[in-house]
Amino acid sequence: MAEHVKRWRVDGSKAVHLHDVDTRSRDGAPGGKHHTRAATEPLVERLAEMQNRLWAEQQRSLLLVLQAMDAGGKDGTIRKVFTGVNPQGVRVASFKAPTTHELAHDFLWRIHREVPGRGEIGVFNRSHYEDVLIVRVEELVPEPVWQGRYAHIRHFEDLLADAGTTVVKVFLHISKDEQAERFQARLDTPEKRWKFSAADLDVRAKWDRYQEAYEDAINETATERNPWYVVPADRKWYRDWAILQILLGTLEDMDPQYPDEEEGLDQVVID
Amino acid sequence: MAEHVKRWRVDGSKAVHLHDVDTRSRDGAPGGKHHTRAATEPLVERLAEMQNRLWAEQQRSLLLVLQAMDAGGKDGTIRKVFTGVNPQGVRVASFKAPTTHELAHDFLWRIHREVPGRGEIGVFNRSHYEDVLIVRVEELVPEPVWQGRYAHIRHFEDLLADAGTTVVKVFLHISKDEQAERFQARLDTPEKRWKFSAADLDVRAKWDRYQEAYEDAINETATERNPWYVVPADRKWYRDWAILQILLGTLEDMDPQYPDEEEGLDQVVID
Repeated sequence: MAEHVKRWRVDGSKAVHLHDVDTRSRDGAPGGKHHTRAATEPLVERLAEMQNRLWAEQQRSLLLVLQAMDAGGKDGTIRKVFTGVNPQGVRVASFKAPTTHELAHDFLWRIHREVPGRGEIGVFNRSHYEDVLIVRVEELVPEPVWQGRYAHIRHFEDLLADAGTTVVKVFLHISKDEQAERFQARLDTPEKRWKFSAADLDVRAKWDRYQEAYEDAINETATERNPWYVVPADRKWYRDWAILQILLGTLEDMDPQYPDEEEGLDQVVID
Repeated sequence: MAEHVKRWRVDGSKAVHLHDVDTRSRDGAPGGKHHTRAATEPLVERLAEMQNRLWAEQQRSLLLVLQAMDAGGKDGTIRKVFTGVNPQGVRVASFKAPTTHELAHDFLWRIHREVPGRGEIGVFNRSHYEDVLIVRVEELVPEPVWQGRYAHIRHFEDLLADAGTTVVKVFLHISKDEQAERFQARLDTPEKRWKFSAADLDVRAKWDRYQEAYEDAINETATERNPWYVVPADRKWYRDWAILQILLGTLEDMDPQYPDEEEGLDQVVID
């Protein structure tokens, strides 16, 4: 893995403390907003190229798990990072409150159905981590149940890794002040107002408990093989640039190859 | 529906004869290759905007069914038309030879699972139409079985329409000579060579039978509500421009709206 993405990486070797991470960091960026945005454009093109190779190879897959507080930038990240990549090989799954049918199964059942197939990049907008986040803070199941889920998650992600799926887990880390600004912007902008719900404020009121749940979830499930990345995300231009660095670093390590051609094609004549 | 897309539209009011359609047509294009490519760029942006509205509305969906002979441009169309649209609201499903598990069900079972949900644009790269195309030509089921499927398809698409899914079926119409050129290009280009299989030549040898099967499938299932579009596709720049015209004309007719905001938001204070 490229050296420069290690600044965001959490791999279980030591615990991360979220309040020690500066959400306004611009650590490692090629410059300020203008320069970094300009430096980000060719990265999107590079991602499109790497995705094309992954798709052609049809052997392995990449799963990007995106988690964040409300207004943390999950939708914006997907739009900025993946618009420009051929949608044929990208599959986005958004997990909302589970349905009755989904609740009738174990918590990984609906997740498992959506993991990317060979050649695909999968993007999870929220994920199985909600089952140790909102479920914990809102006390939707007893503590021993959500505590037991960390191990289930580790085993599930190992299963994916063994099948050729590289799992990249990203926490978009924003400050409480930044969330307030973004909520206000939604309220003030007519075409964004539908994104805001008064219920968002109930969750905001439990900010510290959510941060604690995130910190535990990350530390409990970050491994060398299936690491987390804590990305400072108050600055959207930094966030997009950082995630592209992480994805490209991961794909370059995977190094997907165009498949060999069929034998005997040299003699083919088309008439 | 906008007047200018009617040139490609087949709605059951009169039969289409594929051999009468000029695959090299540039009918209605704003100019030659250079001009038309330039005129196509803002259409992609417009599609991204309309998709955003459809996604925000969360009430209806659009399903683009793409069918073509091998090398007819299905993959290229998806890349050109949808790269630039937020992948969060676009779901591409590619149907290959059915698995044993899929064959253990009716032919629409695997298709139904992949139809777009509310707010989504679905793209089918091949589809249920293969069950009256390759299945017919290769005699994989008896004639009464595939004959009976036309009615099943009409009923299935009516079901989708009743649920708010607008189905747009496109046949990318290329000539046999154009296919030969594209196969040759695949053979001659190292990074495209893996796309070519000697088995493609067996299908090519049955060109006329496939054209007949396509013509019947289109005429049997084209209705006012769920029309087909026969798009001349030898010229890729014309094809991309035409498909964007069709999609935008359809979405403008649908006219998706940003949802109303929750009531009482004017009093909200974020602290």
